[in-house]
Amino acid sequence: MALGDVMEIRSQFFTYGETPEDRLLLHTGEAFGPVTLAYETYGTLNEQKDNAVLIFHALSGSQHLAGFNPEVPGVGDRWNDACQLGWWDDFVGPRKPVDTDRFFVICVNYFCGCYGSTGPSSINPETGKPYGGDFPRISFGDIVDSQLPLFDHLGIKKFHAVIGSSLGGMLGLNFSTRYPERVDRVISIACGLDSTTLTRVHNLEQILAIENDPNFCNGHYYDGPAPLRGLALARMISHKTFVSLYDMEMRMTDRCEQEEDEFSWYKIKTPLESFILHQGRKFLKRFDANTYLYLIAGWTNYHLKDDTGFETYKALFERCKHQKHLVFSIDSDVCFYPEEQVDIHRHLLSAGVESEYIVVHSVKGHDSFLIEPELYADAIRNMLEK
Amino acid sequence: MALGDVMEIRSQFFTYGETPEDRLLLHTGEAFGPVTLAYETYGTLNEQKDNAVLIFHALSGSQHLAGFNPEVPGVGDRWNDACQLGWWDDFVGPRKPVDTDRFFVICVNYFCGCYGSTGPSSINPETGKPYGGDFPRISFGDIVDSQLPLFDHLGIKKFHAVIGSSLGGMLGLNFSTRYPERVDRVISIACGLDSTTLTRVHNLEQILAIENDPNFCNGHYYDGPAPLRGLALARMISHKTFVSLYDMEMRMTDRCEQEEDEFSWYKIKTPLESFILHQGRKFLKRFDANTYLYLIAGWTNYHLKDDTGFETYKALFERCKHQKHLVFSIDSDVCFYPEEQVDIHRHLLSAGVESEYIVVHSVKGHDSFLIEPELYADAIRNMLEK
Repeated sequence: MALGDVMEIRSQFFTYGETPEDRLLLHTGEAFGPVTLAYETYGTLNEQKDNAVLIFHALSGSQHLAGFNPEVPGVGDRWNDACQLGWWDDFVGPRKPVDTDRFFVICVNYFCGCYGSTGPSSINPETGKPYGGDFPRISFGDIVDSQLPLFDHLGIKKFHAVIGSSLGGMLGLNFSTRYPERVDRVISIACGLDSTTLTRVHNLEQILAIENDPNFCNGHYYDGPAPLRGLALARMISHKTFVSLYDMEMRMTDRCEQEEDEFSWYKIKTPLESFILHQGRKFLKRFDANTYLYLIAGWTNYHLKDDTGFETYKALFERCKHQKHLVFSIDSDVCFYPEEQVDIHRHLLSAGVESEYIVVHSVKGHDSFLIEPELYADAIRNMLEK
Repeated sequence: MALGDVMEIRSQFFTYGETPEDRLLLHTGEAFGPVTLAYETYGTLNEQKDNAVLIFHALSGSQHLAGFNPEVPGVGDRWNDACQLGWWDDFVGPRKPVDTDRFFVICVNYFCGCYGSTGPSSINPETGKPYGGDFPRISFGDIVDSQLPLFDHLGIKKFHAVIGSSLGGMLGLNFSTRYPERVDRVISIACGLDSTTLTRVHNLEQILAIENDPNFCNGHYYDGPAPLRGLALARMISHKTFVSLYDMEMRMTDRCEQEEDEFSWYKIKTPLESFILHQGRKFLKRFDANTYLYLIAGWTNYHLKDDTGFETYKALFERCKHQKHLVFSIDSDVCFYPEEQVDIHRHLLSAGVESEYIVVHSVKGHDSFLIEPELYADAIRNMLEK
């Protein structure tokens, strides 16, 4: 990875919950601690502390939004070249759509994550061993709540804007509706209010793929081989919903390669199969199967209304009347279908919340929000100026 | 299973290839034998032997089209109550759309199958043990070719009609184009000319699900536990493409049950997950993982044009000018999308073949062809009368 003129940045760490009264209260009633969060910030928090923009990352993302970060202490080889360039580098930086000359931007690796925040691969101080499958079951609300002490520590009472795409969009909506007084603007990209039937089907397949791997051992695999075949299969199952099949066909090379230990019986015969296997293999080098499983399970059980205890979306969003929302759909998205974002926009409007809805035309599918900044730039810029 | 007024029927068996010169020549060049085929017939072959209708079954189907068949010798518990009532009982029988008072109907369990025909679970006479993963790789053309000696044995030179749905439709097209002189009418339901990108993605996931099961052992699992978890996952992956999600939601009960050994870490929380797991569990009691794998792999590598050695579909179908085709689409089908059947119809017309195209409107998805006879009955009846 050549640095060029890309700025270098390092993750920071914040720890709390080291005493019983300081712990994180989970949706299960359990109080958990200590919690370390790995996060990155870009730009400068102004004196009024009213220029902060919070960004939630997607399923396999990290705190590393922009610039070049060569390593994250404690993460080891998992922080490889697929992680080192920020995943939203086209969107976040000086004079970019989220302009770090004006805004103080923050992104936090999720509680249960594998890029420096406390998660299943972290050492449990009580046992001296990784938590593994004993790490508590988390909800998306828990992930949001886990970040509040960090915001308090930084002195940020209210965010100028919260931005989230995919899973990050669901977390952004959770934060913005459960703590409406802490948010002025919300940008939701390619996400939804609930896990849909199709999502729950896909997620159950992925959970089974990992659970069926004999190396999974109920999540206690850090002393031995990791459930890599299960994780690779899970990633393949989800990957086809993140990209468009058209784009997959376009990106394929002529190569048709399988690794010797990949199958015993089947021999692949097509570049498509080679490409899919390659995507799976690439992923397992940089991600932890437990973190993946915890997030997928949290996603399956995500229901914004139920999580917040409101009877109707109207009642929920009526708390957000002071907020401005911008909702993006991607027309080729088969992970979060455009109907889901229409629902968000419709519920916002019916609750009297200012909302703008934009459908982006792309052949790239769900992942468009990662790779086509030009389709989002102006609208994001305008929203942040409003 | 109450018999009621359902006719009782038994499978028949035909064996060939017991001498070297009588063997089945596979696409790989290998000559294989002996081959036993389990098949059923309904109605009476007339003296001219020109009233025969051949039906190809789908991925998880069997030779047992209609009526009640309590057991198939050698198949054991796999032939359970999910198999005993014919899978097309609403379509095939006296005065039914495929009228057995007029036609002699035949359906053959596929070579590589698990319902009485020679397949991976059959005993290899050379070793005295099941073939397992040593069973030869088969193409759909091999399955078609394996049935020719049976047709010759029965004295059927030309079929009045060939009918196939799903995988069976692909086999029907293979037979009708490779041996056009043996077929007068072709009814293709919810199938395609090639494996599509999405199919190949889904199939690779299923292949991995089975290969990743530690009990798979390269297909040699008949002495020990079968790769049931892998097979169940594979079935779940395909099942969502066979039904419509709408229908899945409608059919769900309120129950939310998981078996104790199903997961170690994950606890399901929704009736949807319970329903999906139940579908997977039900399937593995009645099917063999190797047969599933062989058919999925054959499907992935199915390309009608390449398999037949023709450069264009026009050239291929020009051989079929004497045939009459009827092509069905199901509008909610997400396994074989209606575009695929439009392609079949279009290529037939461009080659000057008589073809009728019907789109069935159903909320049931791909499996409509199994459960909604009223949507197909008249058109099938008319076609057989033509």
